[in-house]
Formats: sequence, structure tokens, C-alpha cells
Amino acid sequence: MQIGIFDSGVGGLTVLKEMAQSFASEDFYYLGDTARLPYGTKSPETIRQYAEQIMDFLAARKVDAIVIACNTASSQVPETLWKNIPVFNVIEPGAEAAVKATRSKRLGVLATRATVRSNSYTDKIHSFDKDIQVFAKSAPLLVGLAEEGWVDDPITDAVVARYLEPLLKNDIDTLILGCTHYPLLVSAIRKACGDKIRLIDSGSAICGKLAEKMSLKASEPTYINEIHFHATDLTAHTRILAQQILKPLVITEFDIVHL
Amino acid sequence: MQIGIFDSGVGGLTVLKEMAQSFASEDFYYLGDTARLPYGTKSPETIRQYAEQIMDFLAARKVDAIVIACNTASSQVPETLWKNIPVFNVIEPGAEAAVKATRSKRLGVLATRATVRSNSYTDKIHSFDKDIQVFAKSAPLLVGLAEEGWVDDPITDAVVARYLEPLLKNDIDTLILGCTHYPLLVSAIRKACGDKIRLIDSGSAICGKLAEKMSLKASEPTYINEIHFHATDLTAHTRILAQQILKPLVITEFDIVHL
Repeated sequence: MQIGIFDSGVGGLTVLKEMAQSFASEDFYYLGDTARLPYGTKSPETIRQYAEQIMDFLAARKVDAIVIACNTASSQVPETLWKNIPVFNVIEPGAEAAVKATRSKRLGVLATRATVRSNSYTDKIHSFDKDIQVFAKSAPLLVGLAEEGWVDDPITDAVVARYLEPLLKNDIDTLILGCTHYPLLVSAIRKACGDKIRLIDSGSAICGKLAEKMSLKASEPTYINEIHFHATDLTAHTRILAQQILKPLVITEFDIVHL
Repeated sequence: MQIGIFDSGVGGLTVLKEMAQSFASEDFYYLGDTARLPYGTKSPETIRQYAEQIMDFLAARKVDAIVIACNTASSQVPETLWKNIPVFNVIEPGAEAAVKATRSKRLGVLATRATVRSNSYTDKIHSFDKDIQVFAKSAPLLVGLAEEGWVDDPITDAVVARYLEPLLKNDIDTLILGCTHYPLLVSAIRKACGDKIRLIDSGSAICGKLAEKMSLKASEPTYINEIHFHATDLTAHTRILAQQILKPLVITEFDIVHL
């Protein structure tokens, strides 16, 4: 089976990695819209238009499923079919996993400006359980810090701590990492949160959903999946970062795409 | 006279502000390519293609001059004519002002990844004086910090100090702010540099050049210039930030443009 995945940049590779390690015999077409990154500060109309162009591109590659591995784009594209291909976004499985995890019914969401503004997580969480209180915070600098590679770094710790402060004050017991870049900063997030808060990573959450809906079987990782990496802009920095995130998986093909 | 100006985002407004305050009777057409921001991490081909689309847009508005108020785009577009309209970039006046300012012939350049990679400042500086040593450092997080509005902030101070450290170690006596967003962070930069280092802001530098080449007369600011603000994506955050940067100048028109 061939799975299409897209994100505004390389962050969605954290989702691809989870999937490739869970589903050893599937191949992947990834598109990172690096020329137009970041999505998190753009308007809903622009984000939707970009997502549709990308889904057309993936449909033309005859993928069997499309995963929107970008929370911002997920917040603008309703989960449905695109040219008869099933489309999965990261919001629903992330929200569902968080609803199952919380005990105190006080949930935090850390996300981009556009995702927070869209209210997607709050709405989805309330569709499962209306009694849950949701506290959302936008964190626009985290993508830049992850892309800079300042992963284990006091500056990143300080930025993360500042963004998390209002959520922690509200006594959340579960935190949704509402952007696929954030798993790259998990050690700073863990430091700021302490041990008692459950972290929900949509990459892990979506694997369960995909297994269920597409009848995929989870297996031990083999690291032999074919991974086609397409980007709308492709610098040396992007190639290196992409391969670094996916390691020990190997990118089979790098390709630049003009949408 | 009508002057066209463009940048990847709102940073170029620091240049527009300098010009509107120097040239009280001119009007301005600004284009911020906010849908595709930032340029600093993109490839030369992509940046050049975007700049040409924007110069076509400004030419259609019948501007008398085009100012590339973006160091990254300046580094990819040679200063010349576009459809018979004179084009000015920020690299040359910035380099020239820095060459005049340095005593020790040790110059620092703080810029985006793409501008540093292009070697534009170094090449231009050496075209004036081959004996000058140029130390360049890319600072990809500063645009995000400026756009977040964390201007007078210990986190920004720490990020700026880290980026400047290798330049200060090299005993520079003059620093080029090689991105039009950086004047927004001048207080953090001044703190990290101390009082002895001269700061060169390309926005001020280009006013002299424009006055000379276009026979413009500098005058006291009147704050009655017409300012047309076009953006490829226009969120509430962008409107507020744009007006904040230009204050006390007033934006006459906000408009969204699809290129």
C-alpha cells in the first residue's frame, strides 16, 4: 500500500516515522510545502487552497490514503474523501487520545496560531465529552527552534516554559502536542511539564486510527519502507534535517515539486 | 512620485517608514509576501521567481522606482531596471555605509540563512575595499521573535547574544543589520554589542541612495504620505503588526493580492 502524507515543512516526518515503524511493509509519498512554510500564521482560505493543491499532487501518485500530518492544515480540511481517496487528519485521533487520557478533565493544547484560532481541538474534544475544559496556547516560535536544531538548549527551555505557563496554571493533567514539529522538542516540554502530565503526540495517535480504518497490521519495524520525499523548495539544510528526523529510516528519493 | 517597495513580510516596513519620514511628499505601494514568508530559508531560484512576480505587480501599479526592502531577495536580484523602472536593493547602500563606518576594517553581518549563503554583503564590501574582513552569521530565529513582538525580552536578549557571540569574538567594530526585521530588535542588539560597535541599518542607508539617484529631496516628516499595503495573505495579526511598525504613519489601504 502507498500512503501519502503532507505537512507545511519537515515536521510531518515525525508522523511518517511513527507510521513507517508501525507498518513495515507500506511505502510513503511525503510532500513538505517548504516553499510556503509556515502555515500557522496564514489565513484559513490560503491554507485550504494549498492543502487542495497538495492532495491533487498525491492523488496523481495513486496513493491509497492521504494523511494530513500538519495540525494547521488539519484544522482547515474536514476529514473525508479526496477524489475517492480516504483523508485522515491529525486532529481527531489526537483529540480522542487526549479525551481517553485525562482524569481531571482539564486538557491543554499547544499549537500554532492558526490551529488555536480555528478551535478545532476544542470542538473535537467537546464532540467526545462536553464537560472537558480545554486550555489552548499558540506557540509560534517552536517551529523555528525545531528547524534551527536547538533541541537540547536553555533558550528553547525558556521559550517552552513561557508558552506552557498559562496552561500549567490552569492545572491541566494532559497536554496535546498540537503541531507535528513539537515531538522534536519533547525533552524541553517534558522538563517544563514535570512527570505528572500526559503528553499526547498525534503521530502515535494516528497510527491506531489508520490501522483500524485501512485494515493495516502493525508489525516490528524493518526499515525497508520506500520513502519518497517531495518538497516545494529543497535546500541542503532541508535534506539534512529531513534525513536526521527520519533516522534510522532512509529516504529513497528527494524531489523538488512546483505546485 | 510613487515608490514601490516589497519584502517577504512586514519587516520591509521599517524601510518604508524611514523613506516616508525622509520624503514627505511621495506615496508608497508596499507588497508583503506574507503567504510565502519567510524567504530566508528558501533556494535562490524560488526567491528570484517570487521577486519577479512581485516586480511585475508593482510595475503594473506604475511606480517610479522599486525598492527591494528584503535582504534575502536583494541578494538574488541584481540592481538594474525592471520594465524600465529603476530597481534598488538594500545590499549596496548597506555595504557602502558599513565600509565608510569601519575603522578597524573588521565588519560583522547578521542576516538570514539565504543572505549569508549568497555572500552578497561580503562580495559587495570587497568591491569597495578588498582589505576589509567580513564575518557573517545567520540568525533564522530573529524574524520570528520580531513577529511575535518579543522586543524587550530576556529570551530575545539571549538569542541575540548567542547569534552575535562569534562576531564579537572576531572584534568587529561595525555591524550590518542584514535583514529589515532586525531594526525592530535594535535594543536587544545594542545590549549584546555594547556602545562601541556601529550599527548599520539598510533602511537609513537606502534613503541617501534614493535621494541621489531619483533626485528626491529630504524634508521634515509630514505623515500625510499615501501608503498602500498589499499582502499575499492578510490576517488580523498582520494588519495590527503593520500599523504598529509604521506608527505614527497611517496605512491608507489594506489589500490582499494573489500572485
